[in-house]
Amino acid sequence: MPDIPDKPRFAFRVKATDGLARTGEIVMRRGTIRTPAFMPVGTAATVKAMKPESVRALGADIILGNTYHLMLRPGAERVARLGGLHTFMNWHRPILTDSGGYQVMSLASLRKLTEEGVAFRSHIDGSRHLLTPERSMEIQRLLGSDIVMAFDECPRADRPRDEIAASMELSMRWARRSRDGFDSGGEHAERSALFGIQQGALDADLRRISAQKLTEIGFDGYAIGGLAVGEGQEAMFATLDFAPGMLPADRPRYLMGVGKPDDLVGAVERGVDMFDCVLPTRSGRNGQGFTWKGPVNLRNARHAEDTGPLDERCACPTCTSYSRAYLHHLHKSGEILGAMLLTEHNLWFYQALMQAMREAIAERRFAGFARDFRRDYLG
Amino acid sequence: MPDIPDKPRFAFRVKATDGLARTGEIVMRRGTIRTPAFMPVGTAATVKAMKPESVRALGADIILGNTYHLMLRPGAERVARLGGLHTFMNWHRPILTDSGGYQVMSLASLRKLTEEGVAFRSHIDGSRHLLTPERSMEIQRLLGSDIVMAFDECPRADRPRDEIAASMELSMRWARRSRDGFDSGGEHAERSALFGIQQGALDADLRRISAQKLTEIGFDGYAIGGLAVGEGQEAMFATLDFAPGMLPADRPRYLMGVGKPDDLVGAVERGVDMFDCVLPTRSGRNGQGFTWKGPVNLRNARHAEDTGPLDERCACPTCTSYSRAYLHHLHKSGEILGAMLLTEHNLWFYQALMQAMREAIAERRFAGFARDFRRDYLG
Ligand SMILES: [Zn+2]
Ligand SMILES: [Zn+2]
Repeated sequence: MPDIPDKPRFAFRVKATDGLARTGEIVMRRGTIRTPAFMPVGTAATVKAMKPESVRALGADIILGNTYHLMLRPGAERVARLGGLHTFMNWHRPILTDSGGYQVMSLASLRKLTEEGVAFRSHIDGSRHLLTPERSMEIQRLLGSDIVMAFDECPRADRPRDEIAASMELSMRWARRSRDGFDSGGEHAERSALFGIQQGALDADLRRISAQKLTEIGFDGYAIGGLAVGEGQEAMFATLDFAPGMLPADRPRYLMGVGKPDDLVGAVERGVDMFDCVLPTRSGRNGQGFTWKGPVNLRNARHAEDTGPLDERCACPTCTSYSRAYLHHLHKSGEILGAMLLTEHNLWFYQALMQAMREAIAERRFAGFARDFRRDYLG
Repeated sequence: MPDIPDKPRFAFRVKATDGLARTGEIVMRRGTIRTPAFMPVGTAATVKAMKPESVRALGADIILGNTYHLMLRPGAERVARLGGLHTFMNWHRPILTDSGGYQVMSLASLRKLTEEGVAFRSHIDGSRHLLTPERSMEIQRLLGSDIVMAFDECPRADRPRDEIAASMELSMRWARRSRDGFDSGGEHAERSALFGIQQGALDADLRRISAQKLTEIGFDGYAIGGLAVGEGQEAMFATLDFAPGMLPADRPRYLMGVGKPDDLVGAVERGVDMFDCVLPTRSGRNGQGFTWKGPVNLRNARHAEDTGPLDERCACPTCTSYSRAYLHHLHKSGEILGAMLLTEHNLWFYQALMQAMREAIAERRFAGFARDFRRDYLG
């Protein structure tokens, strides 16, 4: 990477708060991340249906890469030989990589979970793999990740409490091993950051224990894991009413895998700084567009002769040049351009929403913003 | 359309010749087409996996739209209500539309061919349709086509001679009806052009009769139809040794559905001015890249760790920013970005080849260019 020594490894600064909501920035070697931040997901070394320069043009400061997918294809050692993930995919700003822990449990076959880690077979070719905290740190280092996530286990929120407690305790032991693994990474550790992940599902006591253990170990940022796994928005918000406050206020708080636009607003309202989600990209391929007046299914026949833009308020390239009728046609016809144009709009909308939240917080009018947003979006 | 009265409806000028090869330009209301020209195919109102501004950026002066696909979805009347094909798909330069004759015979089901036209059922929803010369002209007018193709029937080249002769005679009667239908199109006829299509398969006598009949009717340009239907390059070139010379020298000659890069060079060598083909776009989705050293299958494992560009000589955005290893990864992973990047390269390569041929003809060194091209490309 082009090392720029006058930039800090990782510096988070809160510039303004409004209620529990906060806005600020994370300065890193490869670039600055404005918070609250939404990270487009680039699972397999590509934000699906987007060129990286277009991802940047719509305002993304950082993207997410998936350790599980990349370790299987093209392989972490191969990515390293090819110059790292940034060079490989032509995205030269920060990349956060997840640890693989969540996806190995949801995608891989023949999983075997032990204290050591998770043995599994690839969903692509059936090959055998072992993912441990140490190997996860190594993979993320080989990829050249800027923000490395600790390796954890994420149980379903509806499991019995003792199971969730045991899983959280395991994740905390893995967090320690992740910290050690990351710190032994030499030069990479000197220019990258490591985030711990709070677990404990919907249980405040378990969340508090998890936060304490993570804080004792010490991380650059703290993620709230184990949400957005089917518990519903009400239960998620109820957990976010206490979970962020358990994490150090001077560190960014990252809510993993979230979410719908109204999830983001509610989470920022409760003190969250970072998000990632496949929703805008996946929806863009499936014909669902996000607008300030709520989601729109472009496959619906009512759009077939609508010459208006997808969103009157949106300044994105799609809304500037194409009608709902054209987007309808492309999605009905299964055309790649339909996925391209709608993904770009959706990511643009998500970034515009984050920018609007950052401004509302900076101007101390976030409550009004959130009220107006929900009125228009959910109304 | 933004009518620009100081531009001619259709003016073809040959600027230079070299042997039988010629270079020049067609000036039309919506823009100038440099010849020899390659037209990217935009079947269903999109050049697949490409934004229209990117199609223009790589040097395309004109694209092709398919009457058969567009009449079925979204429908010609609907496109007209939405402001025409140019506005619908955000491409404001010339569009050539085919007549639907070829694709109705290759894609539709339950076809019934009569003197009147072709009755068929849609391959999309089974709906009944009748395509006649008059209806084809009406559809192309509703789309707002700049270059309209006469409605014809294209038999397989391996049919008996009397069948090919009868088909050609039918196509010539349809050419007359196409001329009349186009001319009755009012304002559209005053700003658009109509091309006739020579038929007769591989038979010089039939080709001559066809050319005479077309010339008697009179068209703005003349297409060579009935080739690139499986006869092979040798038979195609043998036909191109005589067919283009039968057509008026002061009008553009368009070889429909061609072809591979070496097909284009051989056809330009024989006096052809215009081409269209799905090959660069379809190959771009299938992992085949065209280079000055021949085609490359990017799915092949030998590219997995190749950090070099697809084509050392290519200045396209793909070759500038991405490795063969990355393209290999994207195509192995079925990623949309793989189709996007490779389609863009392939169309860029085709336009670069046309530009190189135009320059070689203008500088009277086409024979040497063709020899060097074949040495590198086929070698
Ligand atoms: Zn938009
Ligand atoms: Zn290229």
